Amino acid sequence: MQQGNRQLRLVSRPTGFAGPEHFETAVEPLRAPGDGEVLVESLYLSIDPAMRVWLDENPGYVPPVGIGEVMRAGGVGRVLESRIPGIEAGDYVQGRLGWQSHPTLPSEGTQKLDLSLGSIEDWMGPLGTTGLTAWFGMRAVGNMARGDRVLISGAAGAVGQMAGQFAKLEGCRVVGIAGGPEKCRDLVAEFGFDAAIDYRAEGDLSTAIAAGHPDGVDLFFDNVGGETLDAALLNLRMKGRVVLCGRISQTAGKKRYGITHTGLLIGKRARMEGFIVSDFGGQYGEARAWISEKLKAGALRQRLHVIEGLDTAPQGLAMLFRGENTGKLVVKVSE
Amino acid sequence: MQQGNRQLRLVSRPTGFAGPEHFETAVEPLRAPGDGEVLVESLYLSIDPAMRVWLDENPGYVPPVGIGEVMRAGGVGRVLESRIPGIEAGDYVQGRLGWQSHPTLPSEGTQKLDLSLGSIEDWMGPLGTTGLTAWFGMRAVGNMARGDRVLISGAAGAVGQMAGQFAKLEGCRVVGIAGGPEKCRDLVAEFGFDAAIDYRAEGDLSTAIAAGHPDGVDLFFDNVGGETLDAALLNLRMKGRVVLCGRISQTAGKKRYGITHTGLLIGKRARMEGFIVSDFGGQYGEARAWISEKLKAGALRQRLHVIEGLDTAPQGLAMLFRGENTGKLVVKVSE
Repeated sequence: MQQGNRQLRLVSRPTGFAGPEHFETAVEPLRAPGDGEVLVESLYLSIDPAMRVWLDENPGYVPPVGIGEVMRAGGVGRVLESRIPGIEAGDYVQGRLGWQSHPTLPSEGTQKLDLSLGSIEDWMGPLGTTGLTAWFGMRAVGNMARGDRVLISGAAGAVGQMAGQFAKLEGCRVVGIAGGPEKCRDLVAEFGFDAAIDYRAEGDLSTAIAAGHPDGVDLFFDNVGGETLDAALLNLRMKGRVVLCGRISQTAGKKRYGITHTGLLIGKRARMEGFIVSDFGGQYGEARAWISEKLKAGALRQRLHVIEGLDTAPQGLAMLFRGENTGKLVVKVSE
Repeated sequence: MQQGNRQLRLVSRPTGFAGPEHFETAVEPLRAPGDGEVLVESLYLSIDPAMRVWLDENPGYVPPVGIGEVMRAGGVGRVLESRIPGIEAGDYVQGRLGWQSHPTLPSEGTQKLDLSLGSIEDWMGPLGTTGLTAWFGMRAVGNMARGDRVLISGAAGAVGQMAGQFAKLEGCRVVGIAGGPEKCRDLVAEFGFDAAIDYRAEGDLSTAIAAGHPDGVDLFFDNVGGETLDAALLNLRMKGRVVLCGRISQTAGKKRYGITHTGLLIGKRARMEGFIVSDFGGQYGEARAWISEKLKAGALRQRLHVIEGLDTAPQGLAMLFRGENTGKLVVKVSE
């Protein structure tokens, strides 16, 4: 059995997709927690699109991951030793574990899981950053209202799945955009979307959106950016809202797509707004209570896409940008 | 003396700039007002960027001006004969006069001027659509607040001048973007802007904005769109607001510029929103009371750019898109 803390450290900045060549493995002795720290055994680590942005020299809203540093990542683990009041060995916590098997974490950003709200797996998805991002994006930023015609890009991804289900539960009509017939079928059959658009199959995306929402779009939750965003702008209704959650099409070192339809926002009195979920930190409890209730009622599904072993994390990040995951992508580090 | 109603009618849709070749002159007999109508002698007609959009086949937010129809335009006139209760011959009214010398107007959209608030010329600018557009754009849409770092494009234009002065009166730091050294000098010397950027002289506009607002921009009031908008997005601060008022760079039949920096709105939690002033119709009174007070205190300047004679109106529209006007462009139809 591996008794050290296995780590993946950044060795060079990617210009395009990130992959295994940008990281190296190191093993350090476990570090006993100091005052206000916990030693944790990592169980699941989250793979999110934002992580690619953290590898850029200037992510803008957070410091970059430095060369030689352990890759930053959220996750869930089991406490081996605690010097944080209120957390004991055997408890489960979430926090910024990073790509390592046995992190020692500060109290800031580390939170004991309330397993009465849901399972450990639920905390990796609906109750975690994924679910909260969809929740605050749709509600606080997008002002989701009953009857809204909702469009979601990256709909088969972790946040997209949640956003679409929240909208259905609130009485909206929901169309998702995803890549490939299988993902599109699942959106309708498994997640209850009213329709799905396969952006790889359709000719003109804007025409396909118009077919899915003949009366236009009230609320567009965008995980993709670029051409997808431009096509959606053409289909906005009066007072339409565009929630900018991510732009996975624009972060892989390619030439940026130029949006040509922002001028339509004027006549349509429409709004486009970006957000970062951590700004809503003070309201997580309320959101989790609602999400937990829906989970327990069986009204909310999540599909975890699990890859096994810490060393698969860099491939996982590349998979995400190739659209090879279905649902929330996580690395299972140990049982 | 011309005793008929002289009109300029649209004869063909422009693809680029609009000009005299797209209109023809006609003279009709004056039409006596029916019940609920007034016959008016036009004094001033407004020339606004939005008018070019009305000539497109599908303006989106209003019906297009039809081929053979009198060109739509706002303006101020003197009442010759009235069958609207509360309006008498000799009163001054504003309304949708159109490009004609003696329109007969319905009560809807026709309003008697309150000359206790300001002069007829004031009603063509600060108290009219121009001033109201700047007011509601900066306040209701842009949430202007004391200390904001404000950027205004098309700053030497009618709405830009007003928006900048409103921001100064509210304690903001204001930088304007305009074309040519003369306009830029006036913005600072005459209208009290803190600094002005000549977009024709500067190399990289984004760098020039950064020099004008070293700590970034809280509120960008955009009349221009395209490259100017893209350069401003690069300089937004956290929680920045972009008010989309117009896009004069993008309405002249040229290939549309593609905006590449919308993704920055995410990390900056920033917002971009369009509006049309008429949505705020119910609140005009409050805005006009404030504006009138500032006019009377000498705290608000307006520069009217007057061209003489109804027949100059089409050239006026072309001047606007070439940036040849300084301040609010109006056609003086009669004394």
